[in-house]
Amino acid sequence: MADPVPDLGAYRPPADFTRGRPALVELLWILVEAIFVSSFLPGSWHRRALLSLFGAKIGAKVVLKPGVRVKFPWRLAIGDNSWIGERAWIDNLAPVTIGADCCVSQGAYLCTGSHDWSARGFDLITRPITLEPGAWVAARAVVGPGVTIGRGAVLGLGSVATRDLDAWTVYAGAPALPIKQRAIAP
Amino acid sequence: MADPVPDLGAYRPPADFTRGRPALVELLWILVEAIFVSSFLPGSWHRRALLSLFGAKIGAKVVLKPGVRVKFPWRLAIGDNSWIGERAWIDNLAPVTIGADCCVSQGAYLCTGSHDWSARGFDLITRPITLEPGAWVAARAVVGPGVTIGRGAVLGLGSVATRDLDAWTVYAGAPALPIKQRAIAP
Amino acid sequence: MADPVPDLGAYRPPADFTRGRPALVELLWILVEAIFVSSFLPGSWHRRALLSLFGAKIGAKVVLKPGVRVKFPWRLAIGDNSWIGERAWIDNLAPVTIGADCCVSQGAYLCTGSHDWSARGFDLITRPITLEPGAWVAARAVVGPGVTIGRGAVLGLGSVATRDLDAWTVYAGAPALPIKQRAIAP
Repeated sequence: MADPVPDLGAYRPPADFTRGRPALVELLWILVEAIFVSSFLPGSWHRRALLSLFGAKIGAKVVLKPGVRVKFPWRLAIGDNSWIGERAWIDNLAPVTIGADCCVSQGAYLCTGSHDWSARGFDLITRPITLEPGAWVAARAVVGPGVTIGRGAVLGLGSVATRDLDAWTVYAGAPALPIKQRAIAP
Repeated sequence: MADPVPDLGAYRPPADFTRGRPALVELLWILVEAIFVSSFLPGSWHRRALLSLFGAKIGAKVVLKPGVRVKFPWRLAIGDNSWIGERAWIDNLAPVTIGADCCVSQGAYLCTGSHDWSARGFDLITRPITLEPGAWVAARAVVGPGVTIGRGAVLGLGSVATRDLDAWTVYAGAPALPIKQRAIAP
Repeated sequence: MADPVPDLGAYRPPADFTRGRPALVELLWILVEAIFVSSFLPGSWHRRALLSLFGAKIGAKVVLKPGVRVKFPWRLAIGDNSWIGERAWIDNLAPVTIGADCCVSQGAYLCTGSHDWSARGFDLITRPITLEPGAWVAARAVVGPGVTIGRGAVLGLGSVATRDLDAWTVYAGAPALPIKQRAIAP
C-alpha cells in the first residue's frame, strides 16, 4: 500500500486558476510594489496611482499607508474613504473587495489562498474576501479565504477570522468569537 | 433616516491629540529609522544613540535588535538592561513605558491606537502601554492600547493581551488567559 | 531580602549554547540573507544555493519564496518537495528539521528560543523544532520551542502551537486545539 503522505512534487496549479496578467506584468508589479508601494515613505497618492495603473479599483480619498502589500492589484477593489494601514498585507490570489468606509489596520493579513489537505497533490484553493462597508479589521488580525466581514463588523486586535462575521458585531480571539454588538451613535 | 455606517471621510484627529514634534522632525525620524534603526544590521549602540537623539529615554545596557520600529521615539522610555527583540514594533502614538529588566521579544507588537467604533467619524483613541520591571512580552505577542503588564508578568508566544496582566503571572492565548504563576528562584 | 525581579544585566549565554559558526561567518550570512534570501525578488534556485553554501541541508525541488528568513542555515534541514512561503521566519537557534512534502506558509514563525523565567538571569533555553513529512504550518501560524509537528498534521491560519501536534490531525486557534482528522484521498 502506498504511503498516504502528501506529495508536493505532484502539485500543479488548478486548471481554473489564472494569475490574471502576463508574467512580465506580474514581475513589473513586484518591482513597483517593492520600490514604491511597500516602501517606508509616507503618502497615499502615489500608492493609489500605482495600484490603479495595475488594475485596482480605488475609491476616492482612500488612504494607503507605508509597507502595504498587494499580491495582484488587478484583483483588488477598495471603496471610498477606506484606509489600509501600515504593513497590511492583501494576499489576493482571489479577489479582495473592500467596501467604503472600511479600515484594515496595520499589520493585518488578508489570506485568500489555502490547500486541499485531503488531496495528494495539496491542490491550491482560492476564495475571495469581502469587507462590507464600515467593517474594521484591526491591527495584526488575520482573515482567511472565503470570509465575508459583514457591514460594520469589527475583527479585534490580533484576532483570526476563518468564518464569516455578522454585521455590526465585534469579534475577538483566535478563533474569533462575537463579544459585543456595535452601534453608531446618532 | 441616515445610514448608520461609519463615515471615515468625516474622520478628524482628536483636538487633544498631538504628534509631539513638527512634521519635519517626524519625517527625519522616518528616514533615520528606516536606514539605521529598523535595518538588518546588528548592534544596539547606534540604535540607542539615535532613539535618544529623537527624545527617547533609554536606560543603561538596553539591547535593541535589528528591525526594531518605533513610531514616536519622544514617547518611549526603556529602563536599564531591557531588551527589544528583532522586528519588535512599538507603535506608540501614546507613551510606551518599559521598565528595567523587561524583554519585548522578536516580532512583538505594542499597539497604543484604537478607534471609537460607536462614533460616525471613527475617532482615534490613544492609550499608553506600560511594562512594569521584569515583564516579558514573548515573540509575536500583541499588546493593546491602555494595557499595563504587571511586574514580572509574562505574555506567551503569539498571545494577545487587551487587558491588564497581573504581576508575576504567565498568560497565553488569544485572548490571553492566566496559566500559571511565575517565581524567581532564590 | 533581595528584590525578586529578574536581572537581565546578569544574563549570560548558557555554557552549552554555541552559535555554530565564527562571528565572521554569521555576519556574512546576515549580509547574504538580507541582500539575496529575504529580498523581494522571486526564485528558489539562488535561495537554495546560498542556504546550502552556509550549511543547510536542502532537498530536491524545495521551494523558497521571497522574504524568507533563517537565523542559522547550518541548523536547518528541509526535505524534498517542501515549500517555505513568503516572509516565513525560521528562527533556529536550535536545529529546525522539516521533512519531505511539508509546507510552511507565508508569514509563519518557527521559534526555537525561550527563556527560563524562574532564573534571575533569564537564561536562554533553546529547543529544536521538527516537522514530520507532509506537515503543514499555515500562514501566519507560530510554532514554539521543542514542538514536533506530527506526520501530515496541520496548524491552521494564524494559530499558535506550543505543544506537539499529533499526526494527521488539524489544529486551530491560539493555543492550537485539535479540530478534525486529516486523511489523504486515495
